[in-house]
Amino acid sequence: MTTTIGMYLFDDIEVLDFAGPFEVFLTAARLKLRVEPGSPRLFEVVTIADGLRPITMRGGLVLQPQFELSNHPGLDVLIVPGGIVTAELQQAAVIDWIAKTAAASTITASVCTGAFLLAQAGLLDGLEATTHWEDLDDLAAMFPSIHVKANTRWVDTGRVVTAAGISAGIDMSLYLVGRLAGMDLALKTARQMEFDWQAPVHQ
Amino acid sequence: MTTTIGMYLFDDIEVLDFAGPFEVFLTAARLKLRVEPGSPRLFEVVTIADGLRPITMRGGLVLQPQFELSNHPGLDVLIVPGGIVTAELQQAAVIDWIAKTAAASTITASVCTGAFLLAQAGLLDGLEATTHWEDLDDLAAMFPSIHVKANTRWVDTGRVVTAAGISAGIDMSLYLVGRLAGMDLALKTARQMEFDWQAPVHQ
Repeated sequence: MTTTIGMYLFDDIEVLDFAGPFEVFLTAARLKLRVEPGSPRLFEVVTIADGLRPITMRGGLVLQPQFELSNHPGLDVLIVPGGIVTAELQQAAVIDWIAKTAAASTITASVCTGAFLLAQAGLLDGLEATTHWEDLDDLAAMFPSIHVKANTRWVDTGRVVTAAGISAGIDMSLYLVGRLAGMDLALKTARQMEFDWQAPVHQ
Repeated sequence: MTTTIGMYLFDDIEVLDFAGPFEVFLTAARLKLRVEPGSPRLFEVVTIADGLRPITMRGGLVLQPQFELSNHPGLDVLIVPGGIVTAELQQAAVIDWIAKTAAASTITASVCTGAFLLAQAGLLDGLEATTHWEDLDDLAAMFPSIHVKANTRWVDTGRVVTAAGISAGIDMSLYLVGRLAGMDLALKTARQMEFDWQAPVHQ
């Protein structure tokens, strides 16, 4: 069984918010194939944007998305990275897509200010959540029903998982590998990436 | 004064080897502009490939490079990420470009298996260097004059700096920010990225 992970891309996305989780699932799938050659790929990561035009990430990196909102594979996991989300928050079609896609997925996750997009889609109402340390107050002010948590790498509420800023997306994704495929693979993935991961004590 | 950092891109490059350093220099430049608005940008990061065609990174990510080997801005720092470097090692034009560009730059750095490309260009002869933990033995076997070091995040020999695997490129880049612009900015950059960086004791 392949778990399909969709990552939402948009202009002014923060590079590592996106690339960190991408690398984690890519590496985990590669390691799994090493020990079980010929098995179905454990994770397939696809990129989705609001159109098939190239995306300009922060710092001017130009990336070509693979799919668009109206036409992409079914997702088991939706990941919404952060960056400058001001424009995205106003895009009703994007927010609507996040809400609908989340309803059809097992897990929806955000990195950094991606939490604002999940919040705008109503996914965090009444739940605990986190975001970049600089944005915790804004998240609480804009969405008063959210129980905003500081000083945590990620918050798992079951169907919705939010990560703190930028590199915390790596930690959260390793956690998701553990949740979806076992802690052993998560630890091996961290080691393969030479990432100093603080694995959760309770798992 | 702007420090221009060139990152070499190639097919089958490891996503985080590239994106980690990119994010570090991008974030450091952004933080510097916050405290000194209107000042020249501290770091400018440009991407360079062996042609202007799109690059397919590992995992199928398609990225558009900004410059090609024969036409790019002068570089203060050249960074060569890793990934599957087998094809690159055989490309005489690329190896030649790395050697010539390194000679004209202040610092040349590698991440992960990017060390093999620096080695092939003769940049590591007689020096200490590191790479991904899985590739340490191969690096020593292929280039016997290199003093290969294990269990270190990066090795700084002055003009040439090599990092260990994948995420260690982030650590090394934070170190380079410290070397080029001071430890205070390096620490602030790590905090902005929420990256748990083990800053060097001697600096």
